[in-house]
Amino acid sequence: MSITIACGQMEVLPGRPDVNTNKILDLIEKAKTEGVDLLVFPEMSIPGYLLGDLWEQPAFLKDCEHFGEQVIAASQNITVIFGNVAIDWQKYNEDGRPRKYNAAFIAQNGKLLPTNTGYPFIIKNSLPNYREFDDKRHFYSLNWLCQEQKLTLKKALHPVPVTLQGKKTKLGVFLCEDGWTEHYLTDVPAMLAGNGAELLVNISCSPFTLGKNNKRHRVFGQQATQFQLPVIYCNNIGIQNNGKNIYTFDGCSCVYGINGKVLCQAPMFEESLLRFSWNKKSNKIAVMDNTMPSLFDTQGCDKNNAPKKLKIRKPKTSPEVFDETNQPEAAIIYKALEYGTSHFLEQCGIKYMVIGISGGIDSAVSAALYAKILGPQNLILVNMPSRYNSGTTKEIAQLVAQNLKTNYMIIPIQESVNHTVAQLTENPIHNYATNRDFKLDVTSFQRENIQARDRGARIQAGLAAAMGGGFSCNSNKSELTVGYATFYGDIAGVVAPLGDLWKHQVYELGHYLNEHVFQKEILPPQVFSIKPSAELSQAQTVGNGGDPLIYEYHDYLFSSFIEKWNKAAPEDILEHYQAQDLETYLGCTAGLITKLFPSPAAFIQDLEKWFKLFAGFSVAKRIQAPPVISVSRRAYGYDHREAQLVPYFSLHYQELKAAILEAAEVTVQKAPIPDITLKK
Amino acid sequence: MSITIACGQMEVLPGRPDVNTNKILDLIEKAKTEGVDLLVFPEMSIPGYLLGDLWEQPAFLKDCEHFGEQVIAASQNITVIFGNVAIDWQKYNEDGRPRKYNAAFIAQNGKLLPTNTGYPFIIKNSLPNYREFDDKRHFYSLNWLCQEQKLTLKKALHPVPVTLQGKKTKLGVFLCEDGWTEHYLTDVPAMLAGNGAELLVNISCSPFTLGKNNKRHRVFGQQATQFQLPVIYCNNIGIQNNGKNIYTFDGCSCVYGINGKVLCQAPMFEESLLRFSWNKKSNKIAVMDNTMPSLFDTQGCDKNNAPKKLKIRKPKTSPEVFDETNQPEAAIIYKALEYGTSHFLEQCGIKYMVIGISGGIDSAVSAALYAKILGPQNLILVNMPSRYNSGTTKEIAQLVAQNLKTNYMIIPIQESVNHTVAQLTENPIHNYATNRDFKLDVTSFQRENIQARDRGARIQAGLAAAMGGGFSCNSNKSELTVGYATFYGDIAGVVAPLGDLWKHQVYELGHYLNEHVFQKEILPPQVFSIKPSAELSQAQTVGNGGDPLIYEYHDYLFSSFIEKWNKAAPEDILEHYQAQDLETYLGCTAGLITKLFPSPAAFIQDLEKWFKLFAGFSVAKRIQAPPVISVSRRAYGYDHREAQLVPYFSLHYQELKAAILEAAEVTVQKAPIPDITLKK
Repeated sequence: MSITIACGQMEVLPGRPDVNTNKILDLIEKAKTEGVDLLVFPEMSIPGYLLGDLWEQPAFLKDCEHFGEQVIAASQNITVIFGNVAIDWQKYNEDGRPRKYNAAFIAQNGKLLPTNTGYPFIIKNSLPNYREFDDKRHFYSLNWLCQEQKLTLKKALHPVPVTLQGKKTKLGVFLCEDGWTEHYLTDVPAMLAGNGAELLVNISCSPFTLGKNNKRHRVFGQQATQFQLPVIYCNNIGIQNNGKNIYTFDGCSCVYGINGKVLCQAPMFEESLLRFSWNKKSNKIAVMDNTMPSLFDTQGCDKNNAPKKLKIRKPKTSPEVFDETNQPEAAIIYKALEYGTSHFLEQCGIKYMVIGISGGIDSAVSAALYAKILGPQNLILVNMPSRYNSGTTKEIAQLVAQNLKTNYMIIPIQESVNHTVAQLTENPIHNYATNRDFKLDVTSFQRENIQARDRGARIQAGLAAAMGGGFSCNSNKSELTVGYATFYGDIAGVVAPLGDLWKHQVYELGHYLNEHVFQKEILPPQVFSIKPSAELSQAQTVGNGGDPLIYEYHDYLFSSFIEKWNKAAPEDILEHYQAQDLETYLGCTAGLITKLFPSPAAFIQDLEKWFKLFAGFSVAKRIQAPPVISVSRRAYGYDHREAQLVPYFSLHYQELKAAILEAAEVTVQKAPIPDITLKK
Repeated sequence: MSITIACGQMEVLPGRPDVNTNKILDLIEKAKTEGVDLLVFPEMSIPGYLLGDLWEQPAFLKDCEHFGEQVIAASQNITVIFGNVAIDWQKYNEDGRPRKYNAAFIAQNGKLLPTNTGYPFIIKNSLPNYREFDDKRHFYSLNWLCQEQKLTLKKALHPVPVTLQGKKTKLGVFLCEDGWTEHYLTDVPAMLAGNGAELLVNISCSPFTLGKNNKRHRVFGQQATQFQLPVIYCNNIGIQNNGKNIYTFDGCSCVYGINGKVLCQAPMFEESLLRFSWNKKSNKIAVMDNTMPSLFDTQGCDKNNAPKKLKIRKPKTSPEVFDETNQPEAAIIYKALEYGTSHFLEQCGIKYMVIGISGGIDSAVSAALYAKILGPQNLILVNMPSRYNSGTTKEIAQLVAQNLKTNYMIIPIQESVNHTVAQLTENPIHNYATNRDFKLDVTSFQRENIQARDRGARIQAGLAAAMGGGFSCNSNKSELTVGYATFYGDIAGVVAPLGDLWKHQVYELGHYLNEHVFQKEILPPQVFSIKPSAELSQAQTVGNGGDPLIYEYHDYLFSSFIEKWNKAAPEDILEHYQAQDLETYLGCTAGLITKLFPSPAAFIQDLEKWFKLFAGFSVAKRIQAPPVISVSRRAYGYDHREAQLVPYFSLHYQELKAAILEAAEVTVQKAPIPDITLKK
């Protein structure tokens, strides 16, 4: 007996149960025509998942319930597994709000199948609450329910007997994090298997992260082997956000065979009905013809925000499936940024973008990315020179626009900057206590920031409004880490597509854009070879000093402060510096540190300077920064949450520092007071 | 036998275990000289509590452990209860990081007392994860430990026997949320009492919220009565933040007698050693002489961020204790804003502030508040007229500066705005696809936002830098709710002191400032009587239309969207509108709605317009808004978390709308597409 199963890898629009249900219902009808017995949808496929505190609005919850009933009613002659919020209005969450579960429903012939908890749905047990996840904030765990009901988890985690092709089959259905068992008390798949499950089905709403799919293949593949059960993984596509972080969802729904291998997989970032058949007796999965990866026009709303009548696309004869295996990191980053940025702009209704183009790498890469997303005709690249901008960078800026065949303009800012400085310094300030007037001075450093804000808040914001669109924040993660950027200047815009990339990743993305995306030198060679520089003063030009950041080292140092699962602090850095394995620890080029820092004192001074900025003033800037398309294992924003604190150096750091400096026979110098005013 | 007990109501500096321990050690010494037997410190008094993800940095955790050991060592001849993070480096949290507990330690004669869990500390069981709280993100619950260790909560929640005055006393020590038992499975105080506790001690790190202390008095007072045990409540003062929200901690440590009444209380927002004696036999609390509410100069760091040698202040003979009982709301709001803003500026090292002063109520109240905090000599009030600003408001602006005896200047922006418009419209844009040039237009609406950004990002940010300080964001909660403010214009600045106040609360605070804080008319009468207006166009002046918001209604409508525990949605509003009890439901003036809206259609149009802004574009603005001093039951930011979503109107809303409009015999008009570009 072979059972035909399909994963409905759909785009989920967060907060729009009407739109999502529309899509689910269409997919159910389509699956019926394809002879599917069991159709699986992702976790939270009706409400969406990252919704902030919209979970606290009962009106929204009631609609999620209502739309769930529509899906149940549509399950005539088919079995449908779908994720939704389940509400028990008679009970409370710990916060006193209505009891909410993150649940999987199994519907067949218009009815829900019962489970051992007494509820007709399966409840998520392991509620992730790290990184961007807030499950414990909103949902009640199966574990807590078992305590309340004096039920054992062993009893509660029983597979659900489902009649498929006329025979009872025990389905072990579980939700997302319940498959990632490493540090939870309860191993959900093991318990389901131990209780006699014949097939494991994981429904997920799992944001894309670089490297995560490989880890999943290891973890889920191992479960399939260990329990000798096929594991189905069903994930959605689309974007969801929690304000500061915009996540892409890559789908990649797949089936793990009992050999632990991925037997078939839906394409990355594409809607798809992934079909396969399962022979219960032989426990084998047979891959079916899946030549229709792109199911729908993915926009689920019409202009008035009502659910749209969906049109099924014609089957592509040779689908362009993106396979991340063996791709360079830049290719996967490009894929995620292109997908995330385009969907975010679409959700915001933004069709035109202004990109401040300086001639540096960040804005050039940004421009090329937006040109692919919106089309070059829908961009304005604006170069905004002051007297410090070189001919070299102005030329690069123009070349990029020319190569992209986009719109280009030059708006000089010197006159406005001079006017601002004059207004700040020449207008008298009257003191009503003394009845005297006085005036202020503007330093050359303050002039730098005046330039940056003139470009961001005056020109780009004004242009974006005049164009009826938005403007881009081109900041990268290296700059955001230490606040090497100006409030309301370059940390401004509707979205920061490069905000989760280290500077070296921006360069790699630039090369990838030339070589693979455009397949010609859209970004001219000079943009890769000039010294990065903010060009805001005589001292900071492409000819002179350039940026104070040494990206080949600082990218890796900064990454250790935020991206290591157990975050590195200065004491960890000094420990490895002392042990002479710091480059290995950080993952940067061997021999670099000795080359860069002539003495331990110089090394320590650099470390303290940047750490103070990272843990100090830059936090204030990040609090007001635009949302970031998030791709790394830890992005600034809601993923890596921050309080504004006074930077702290641990006791062990201070001991190490003293010992290292003493050993180097260098006078211990007092740590410099942090230069918290450093800005681009 | 009488036992002398004290609460060490200290200021906790988040993320500075060195500074906090310094203070704890001094307080222990002081308590010894005062004959204290049992000294109680707040929850997380060593590390601080709202630290974002600093909890993930092992170096920081190790120092917290180390400083905890110093406190333990200092407990010679005294018993000390203190809150700290407890780490079990051999075990894991669910996220795979080192196991962390939010714990209370009882130290006596240099040693920790054992508990029933096998650990020498008491573990918090109820981990709050609503509003600003993230306990489940970082800490492992006692409940989970009990599951892991196959221990019953009844056994784990045993009071700790402590020898006080030579006799064993069973102390029922518990942490913060464990006293707020309503919706948790385990009633911790009841279990402690049932297990024979003779005294209940709650250590907290509880942020100030309007109305919360009254609720605590009911909840904790009821426990004291029910169990016939005195309840000690020890809370810290200071400020802590999680980026977007700055919370004040009001202390108000107190003792509840077995009659449920507060017998003595430490002052609000003041360091204090609250002493009292407990007669174990009679179970009576005797209040002691507490004429030293202000213990220390509260700044714990010196200029180099090292812990400071603390100086104990001379006892005040008549301490100015602020008692919130019977105070008007505006008095309590003033107290919290003054405390929160001043401490936040101090932590940021900001001594000078620029306040854009328009002549409206928000900036006037803001100016008066900062004048009290920093002194009028450290402010610049800047009026930035364009051609739309009236003589009336310019006069008010100047009068406020004059009355405050502060610094005042006028910087007109018309020339700069004209220059910007000219640059945006006269510079040709070259299209490299067609090789033709084109130009853009700027609408009058876009001119409005150019003015706002010119004031914020060009003038105020520039002035603040020239002054070596910051500038204020004067936005209120009504504006923030619907984004009635401009990106990089008036939603900008280091902090928004009024960002958690509805417009009517800003007016009330204005009156309070005049009548009680300054005791003269610092804010001239006109500022209360003119029509609120942004003065950004001919149509929007104090003479003409004024703001589109009708604060006496919209303040209350907006509050229902965010501040109700179960958030109101448009369907709830329409239900109450239909039932004709909407004013009661919202809490606004009776008869108002009929007066404001001539027809159901007009009412619905208004509701949809604002809800779409609230749930739509304004979220983008809040994501980039400055931190808010938080005082209400729900503040924008990390307290009320938001995703950028497409606004959603529920099915029931649509039914109600159709029914209401039909009943009114009005043609159903299509909902207007949201005017997402509305800005101030």
